[in-house]
Amino acid sequence: MNKNRLEAFSDGVLAIIITIMVLEFKVPSDTTFEAVIKLSHKFLSYILSFIYVGIYWNNHHHLIHSAKNVNGKILWANLHLLFWLSLIPFATAWIGEHHFASFPMMLYGIVLLMNALAYFILQKLILNDQGKDSALSKAIGKDYKGKASVVLYLIAVFMTKYSIEVSGSIYILVALIWLIPDRRIERTFNENK
Amino acid sequence: MNKNRLEAFSDGVLAIIITIMVLEFKVPSDTTFEAVIKLSHKFLSYILSFIYVGIYWNNHHHLIHSAKNVNGKILWANLHLLFWLSLIPFATAWIGEHHFASFPMMLYGIVLLMNALAYFILQKLILNDQGKDSALSKAIGKDYKGKASVVLYLIAVFMTKYSIEVSGSIYILVALIWLIPDRRIERTFNENK
Amino acid sequence: MNKNRLEAFSDGVLAIIITIMVLEFKVPSDTTFEAVIKLSHKFLSYILSFIYVGIYWNNHHHLIHSAKNVNGKILWANLHLLFWLSLIPFATAWIGEHHFASFPMMLYGIVLLMNALAYFILQKLILNDQGKDSALSKAIGKDYKGKASVVLYLIAVFMTKYSIEVSGSIYILVALIWLIPDRRIERTFNENK
Amino acid sequence: MNKNRLEAFSDGVLAIIITIMVLEFKVPSDTTFEAVIKLSHKFLSYILSFIYVGIYWNNHHHLIHSAKNVNGKILWANLHLLFWLSLIPFATAWIGEHHFASFPMMLYGIVLLMNALAYFILQKLILNDQGKDSALSKAIGKDYKGKASVVLYLIAVFMTKYSIEVSGSIYILVALIWLIPDRRIERTFNENK
Repeated sequence: MNKNRLEAFSDGVLAIIITIMVLEFKVPSDTTFEAVIKLSHKFLSYILSFIYVGIYWNNHHHLIHSAKNVNGKILWANLHLLFWLSLIPFATAWIGEHHFASFPMMLYGIVLLMNALAYFILQKLILNDQGKDSALSKAIGKDYKGKASVVLYLIAVFMTKYSIEVSGSIYILVALIWLIPDRRIERTFNENK
Repeated sequence: MNKNRLEAFSDGVLAIIITIMVLEFKVPSDTTFEAVIKLSHKFLSYILSFIYVGIYWNNHHHLIHSAKNVNGKILWANLHLLFWLSLIPFATAWIGEHHFASFPMMLYGIVLLMNALAYFILQKLILNDQGKDSALSKAIGKDYKGKASVVLYLIAVFMTKYSIEVSGSIYILVALIWLIPDRRIERTFNENK
Repeated sequence: MNKNRLEAFSDGVLAIIITIMVLEFKVPSDTTFEAVIKLSHKFLSYILSFIYVGIYWNNHHHLIHSAKNVNGKILWANLHLLFWLSLIPFATAWIGEHHFASFPMMLYGIVLLMNALAYFILQKLILNDQGKDSALSKAIGKDYKGKASVVLYLIAVFMTKYSIEVSGSIYILVALIWLIPDRRIERTFNENK
Repeated sequence: MNKNRLEAFSDGVLAIIITIMVLEFKVPSDTTFEAVIKLSHKFLSYILSFIYVGIYWNNHHHLIHSAKNVNGKILWANLHLLFWLSLIPFATAWIGEHHFASFPMMLYGIVLLMNALAYFILQKLILNDQGKDSALSKAIGKDYKGKASVVLYLIAVFMTKYSIEVSGSIYILVALIWLIPDRRIERTFNENK
């Protein structure tokens, strides 16, 4: 019961976050092909952030699904995660508006990093509640993916000063790590345990 | 369970998409009848897009309802559909703001086309999961409506260069195909199988 | 199942409609008491529309709750109602921004009227589906409240040309009719049948 | 059933309220570190209001969860609470935009006060419905926290004329009272009964 409403509220917030990013696409003042081309940076940043929020929604779903019950700490760790997720539209708009300029790209990386940490905290609290032998604990394993993401974000944030191409590639890479080979990698990780 | 949350999240996103289009109706600076008349293009484009999102919500509902279970692929195909649906408010605002100008009308058609393709992919993945003899498979049949929509969208997109009246009529026609005679046509399709 | 998702989607749209009205409260450029006073017309129109959307949510809830099943017609009548409800924020912003000027007040009344008619259609379709002896049919009775609302809206719309005080009072009156004495009047109506 | 839809609707409104505050973070026109620093007031006010809405969502959840059934009065008391909660984004934007200026800080406090009173009314109505010996009644006890909050808000509102530091500290203090030591204090309160 408790858990259902946590899911429903999180779904609501995530649905709004993923959709308000689209409000950044202001209607162009002219009606040419160039007007659309000018939006290409915003469009690319929107796609990337859409995928990130999608990944979080997906993982969040599995995480909460596996939680037996929800206590006050988990509830606030969840709100903490939603807080950082809610900053993604702002960071996305900033990098899109200013064509992936160095400092906005750094902030974008910091927001992604904080999201990863907030997710890690939430995961930790749910794991603590369940014990080491739970199915969730085994599925997550040593959480190489989560740890690798944090390291990659840190590198990307540092690299924004020197090359936004490298930083941007890392943001895309982390998304792909979570998006595409999900199961295979997870299985490999589990075997490496 | 999994399925319910997919529905809930999709409902949330669809509810936001259908409602934020209304934010394009900026409060007129005067209080005359003419001020409302000036909004007529936006109003017409809003009605059309409202109906389109309504149709997608309706069909999406039936589609997910008939799905037995939801795997990772279906989940991402669903997010892919939501992505293209989320661009409808932008395309709607553009054609409304610029009185159905040629290029925005083309983009509107491309967005509708991408939505149709995204829906087709989602449908395909759910059908693959269910087998050829499922009730869903029989209900969809050869999917003449889906295929006809894609062809009509392509014609409309091409025609925007020559006549926005023709393109606009096709957009309305496709909506009517899905909206009005739903059952009768479906039965005919089923008999033609 | 079907019904639940109709409710969930309608709840989502209603929740957004009731909340986006608040986006009209633009942050004042100064920090004085007068800045808040200038918002008073917007505030009053927001309160009235908040109550109206609240009434619709409440009645919609009872109506759908009593529906046995949901067919295609009911689904589209529901979307039709949501369409007119979605115009309330625009009409509210217009009357608030322009201090209840005559023409915006007329449009506000027309939107309320269309909502009443859309609700009437939805109610009719659900009643048709249930038969005359259903509990819902008895609860609604001869629907004096619904019919009186339509007549009052028509008078208010006509009166905007001559006195926005009269029109405004009628809008408030109709809200009070639905808001305050709900049960007592309903019982009286039932006895008058 | 009734209760579930009240929860779902409230969740929807709360999810939107907590998320639209983020729309106040307008994309800066430059891409410097200073641009982010300029947003710091908005960021601080966002954090505080995010926590407040989180607290209300949390408490609202427990309150409605413990309610046996929902009548018309409870339903409208709930809408009344949602109304005042919906003003939090406006008040938050005002204090953030104008760097915690005196009068906006007063209005922020008044909005928090009205929320506390609206919550108190909702709680009272649910308690009346349940009887004095209910679990909810015992859990709330003499509601020292609720009463202390109201007194603290009143002091803070009064103090905005003299020191926004004091008022701001009180707003943070009340949030902490509800946020951090929830259970311990509640137990103490229960023992003091």
